Amino acid sequence: MADQLTKRAENYSQWYNDLVVKADLAEQSAVRGCMVIKPYGYAIWEKMQHTLDSMFKETGVKNAYFPLFIPKSFFSREAEHVAGFAKECAVVTHHRLMNDPGGNGVVVDPEAKLEEELIVRPTSETIIWSTYKNWIKSWRDLPILCNQWCNVVRWEMRTRPFLRTAEFLWQEGHTAHLTAEEAQERALQMVNVYADFARNCLALPVIVGHKSPNERFAGALDTLTIEAMMQDGKALQSGTSHFLGQNFARAFDVKYADKDGGLQYVWATSWGVSTRLMGALIMAHSDDNGLVLPPKLAPIQVVMVPIYKTMEERERILARMASLRAELEADGHSVEIDDRDTLRPGFKFAEWELKGVPVRLAIGPRDLEAGTVEVHRRDTMEKQTVELSTIVGSIEALLDDIQQNIYRKALEFRASNVEKCDDWDEFKAKIGTGKFLLCHWDGTTETEQRIKDETKATIRCIPIDSFVCEEEGKDILTGKPSHRRVVFAIAY
Amino acid sequence: MADQLTKRAENYSQWYNDLVVKADLAEQSAVRGCMVIKPYGYAIWEKMQHTLDSMFKETGVKNAYFPLFIPKSFFSREAEHVAGFAKECAVVTHHRLMNDPGGNGVVVDPEAKLEEELIVRPTSETIIWSTYKNWIKSWRDLPILCNQWCNVVRWEMRTRPFLRTAEFLWQEGHTAHLTAEEAQERALQMVNVYADFARNCLALPVIVGHKSPNERFAGALDTLTIEAMMQDGKALQSGTSHFLGQNFARAFDVKYADKDGGLQYVWATSWGVSTRLMGALIMAHSDDNGLVLPPKLAPIQVVMVPIYKTMEERERILARMASLRAELEADGHSVEIDDRDTLRPGFKFAEWELKGVPVRLAIGPRDLEAGTVEVHRRDTMEKQTVELSTIVGSIEALLDDIQQNIYRKALEFRASNVEKCDDWDEFKAKIGTGKFLLCHWDGTTETEQRIKDETKATIRCIPIDSFVCEEEGKDILTGKPSHRRVVFAIAY
Repeated sequence: MADQLTKRAENYSQWYNDLVVKADLAEQSAVRGCMVIKPYGYAIWEKMQHTLDSMFKETGVKNAYFPLFIPKSFFSREAEHVAGFAKECAVVTHHRLMNDPGGNGVVVDPEAKLEEELIVRPTSETIIWSTYKNWIKSWRDLPILCNQWCNVVRWEMRTRPFLRTAEFLWQEGHTAHLTAEEAQERALQMVNVYADFARNCLALPVIVGHKSPNERFAGALDTLTIEAMMQDGKALQSGTSHFLGQNFARAFDVKYADKDGGLQYVWATSWGVSTRLMGALIMAHSDDNGLVLPPKLAPIQVVMVPIYKTMEERERILARMASLRAELEADGHSVEIDDRDTLRPGFKFAEWELKGVPVRLAIGPRDLEAGTVEVHRRDTMEKQTVELSTIVGSIEALLDDIQQNIYRKALEFRASNVEKCDDWDEFKAKIGTGKFLLCHWDGTTETEQRIKDETKATIRCIPIDSFVCEEEGKDILTGKPSHRRVVFAIAY
Repeated sequence: MADQLTKRAENYSQWYNDLVVKADLAEQSAVRGCMVIKPYGYAIWEKMQHTLDSMFKETGVKNAYFPLFIPKSFFSREAEHVAGFAKECAVVTHHRLMNDPGGNGVVVDPEAKLEEELIVRPTSETIIWSTYKNWIKSWRDLPILCNQWCNVVRWEMRTRPFLRTAEFLWQEGHTAHLTAEEAQERALQMVNVYADFARNCLALPVIVGHKSPNERFAGALDTLTIEAMMQDGKALQSGTSHFLGQNFARAFDVKYADKDGGLQYVWATSWGVSTRLMGALIMAHSDDNGLVLPPKLAPIQVVMVPIYKTMEERERILARMASLRAELEADGHSVEIDDRDTLRPGFKFAEWELKGVPVRLAIGPRDLEAGTVEVHRRDTMEKQTVELSTIVGSIEALLDDIQQNIYRKALEFRASNVEKCDDWDEFKAKIGTGKFLLCHWDGTTETEQRIKDETKATIRCIPIDSFVCEEEGKDILTGKPSHRRVVFAIAY
């Protein structure tokens, strides 16, 4: 249980790895760098998917499905994209196995070599734009607003569950537009959808901003990002939205006939969030007792634990709990009764705390007589005895309060760890201590790189909300003039 | 539009291929054998997914996610499974591309060869049972009831959209049990879930039965199937559920400690349906005018087409339609108003018929004055003028009636094409004419194979519902004794 969980203060990284496994979220598979997402972890991801999917659809986006495989030659079409994506990837070279002539299992059939190798998609811009070429003839065919929920593969050398895995699950939206302005508005709209989702569902305060040119998606003219602060003060890039200009339209020759009959290249965006959000959720809120889940994403919102000595007490309490569950479920809450008879209540309490269930209700024989119930909230670990007759009516407000409190706590944590910094020595002293530093930057990739080389800090974003950064100043390193502060941090 | 659609009587196969493309369901991609599922087609698949997913969860199943890749050696573990699945598959041999030293795009980096090749999953029994080994220690850990929604790849030589593609989408359930009986019950339960879904949602009459040993899933002790009749009288296997015995538990050494402390191998099932159901849906109900969609799966249930000459008429009619849509949507129906101003109503009618929208409402200026609306139902192509004030209240019943009617029509079609047959010459004459023949079979693989070699017909199933087949008789070919009839047909 929780006492086997490494403490955050001892080893934050180990605490995270422990928690992912002990809370039954995911585990390493037999395949290097690929994880198994266990039912409890997957249930959280499903809730994220359902909420995001509805939000996308409200903006007119429709789901579709494009192939897993991409012909190798497609990656050579867009120069920057190939540099960024066609390197560490899974390459399919053959399409058949055969019995080992030596009698030792199966081997690759050398006769079944593909004419052109196929790449397991690391992202789908190329295959999708090769498809859009068939869909787009005239201005009437635009905009196209497609999204797909799928798996992608990037051959990472060092992997961590949810944060960086060879295979991961994500959604990728790919839109096609008449004008640059319309595409830029869509890119901004979608990063704001991500920000709303992060704040309202994940209870995660995020900073929305532009990436510096150096940190842009390979092939993008602009990358918007949501950046979150984890409890160790490091930044986690949690979602990105790209304005791709006409780069992919040019690479795949996608043009539309405008109203005057002229041919124009189409403008593009793409945007995605992944199972990395699971990592953000875990690292932002959880504690030394285990997961802390915002009620909106908790697979189980309320767990009930009966306290009894005799079987007769057990029966009576479980009967009362069953009717309570029916009422709570009728109100749309997800409820579990922990009626396992071989475990002590204290063990159960610790287990549900580890799994981050927002509300625990315990009822013993004396509660039943007195008409009371013990209510425990996971976020604050506070216990309170309340009247049983009022619990159904008050649970909604309690869950709301927990959702808000988790967000507020994360916001306060971030507020106390964001600082303006105007001195290079101070920067070097503080950047490794878990701070986001708001600093002036001269706008050059060269300076950004020097800062990264010396301190490992990167520009997380040039914020467009969360902080007022427009002001005149001097670059933290070079002293050259700057018109606004940007966010520096050490990132995952 | 529909007049470009090949007629079923002319060329059923071409009609199907045409319809998939013209109704905007799917198209061939740039990757051999892989299709793009377009938004309209994907919306139907999403409805199938949501319904099935709820049905699974009601039986206690939870979703999870397992890796895309399977180490090659895993396939050698279960002898029959390797023969059935580890042959035509996508093999990943390298994990990196590099710039072509000759300056010609990118090439596979020969240094980045994997130590062991990875197979893109054709089905996941092996990787899942290698995982279950870690999850199962004691009888208390059972049953495990997991499902995953994912993509799989089987390198098919001849592909057809939805029916047989290299990559396809599916769900695969994998359960682990204490006893053979419990596993067998689960396999039966899930094939019945599929049958209920096919009948109630897809409006598809299916025959539930056992596969003959020869047609079983590779590694199964028993395969249950749902078999549907298409409009050409051919059979389409639409879903299967397997009792796997202890084969995978033995292959991956998965044992549980029973209550007496002994170690027992675990019993297994697996079951799946795929995007092939899209093919079944299309081929079972659609006609020479296009798709016919059961209302429960139609992305758009009601489409409204305004009929007008002047802009003033257009405005008035669209205003009335907007309020009608709001009422229909409030009742949970999906509605679209076709307000495109550049197309004639007749063109729109044909397009929505092609796309299979169950109900079309047309309103013209005289309708508005008279308080009427023209109601067209796609299944019968019948038109009726009804009072506008009653339409909202009657639409639910109309959609129900359409759903029932589509099922009834398919059931009647099947009834008129299923025959008992007891004579070998008659069998040979009739089997190629689009019939399911209920025949006696002596139970041997040898006879089954001879019948297949001579006529291409296979035993689709040994029915356990739909037809009473228990009776004494003589094998259709060999004349040997038989205790029940089985279903023979030509299959997709």
